[in-house]
Amino acid sequence: MKTLFRYNWMVREEWYRWCEGLSEEELLRTRTGGVGSILHTLFHIVDVEWSWIRLLQGKTDFDESFDGYKSLNQVRKLDSEFRSEVENFVNNWDDSMENQLLYDTLPDGRIVTDTWGEVIRHVIAHEIHHIGQLSIWAREEGKKPVSANLIGRGLISQSNT
Amino acid sequence: MKTLFRYNWMVREEWYRWCEGLSEEELLRTRTGGVGSILHTLFHIVDVEWSWIRLLQGKTDFDESFDGYKSLNQVRKLDSEFRSEVENFVNNWDDSMENQLLYDTLPDGRIVTDTWGEVIRHVIAHEIHHIGQLSIWAREEGKKPVSANLIGRGLISQSNT
Repeated sequence: MKTLFRYNWMVREEWYRWCEGLSEEELLRTRTGGVGSILHTLFHIVDVEWSWIRLLQGKTDFDESFDGYKSLNQVRKLDSEFRSEVENFVNNWDDSMENQLLYDTLPDGRIVTDTWGEVIRHVIAHEIHHIGQLSIWAREEGKKPVSANLIGRGLISQSNT
Repeated sequence: MKTLFRYNWMVREEWYRWCEGLSEEELLRTRTGGVGSILHTLFHIVDVEWSWIRLLQGKTDFDESFDGYKSLNQVRKLDSEFRSEVENFVNNWDDSMENQLLYDTLPDGRIVTDTWGEVIRHVIAHEIHHIGQLSIWAREEGKKPVSANLIGRGLISQSNT
């Protein structure tokens, strides 16, 4: 679980650097699918990761719109503000948390139950899915996307799984 | 780990059903990015998953080209032929396998070492990434993609993690 989070953070950092090669206009251009632009996708990944980690801790959610974060630097700053809390939660994850229950109220008022194990995997898959979308938009810009390979990054030798 | 594999298989099955709504021409149309077409992506996911599981078991790899599998039914059939072996391997996964080493010879002759834990996560992330690409192509076809949500699928209650 921890390895997949570290993978996501590493790949996300490489996308930030990749974004440095694009103009703000290209980063914000409305594209087909996903949440609609490259920078909005990165904002959305950061937002969703932190929001779920907050919910699991019973803390208030993040509920700001993308409007205030329409530059690469602002998204990176937000990410680094959130990261230490997310990292702390992930690094303290243990198997006993797997089956704890989160009661989540949907917009329509229904209450659904998720296990913490489901939520944490949802967060992992959410980012990888959106990064896959970026890779298509990158090619549509005529640019080589960041590699999605997990092997070859030295992830396992760095710490435990 | 097992939950993420079950998530991938469930989402993949939904994409197969989604593909039934497209013509063979649309499934095979060359698109920008990824491996180039919707059906080739699904073939590639099936191929890569099985190939790594074979490698971990010290068995021969799958080395066929997409040329022989250019219909939805052929890809589904290949998937179901491979699935029982993959499922068996995944279901028998335990933490003691995490740090076992795989020595992999690259095309250029170099030998690299991956842990089994890295390989298994690589396979998981590989599929999610490519499914993210399909979601963009779906929107470009004017169609709603399969949901990538992991929560709400009843994954954890079905079995262990």
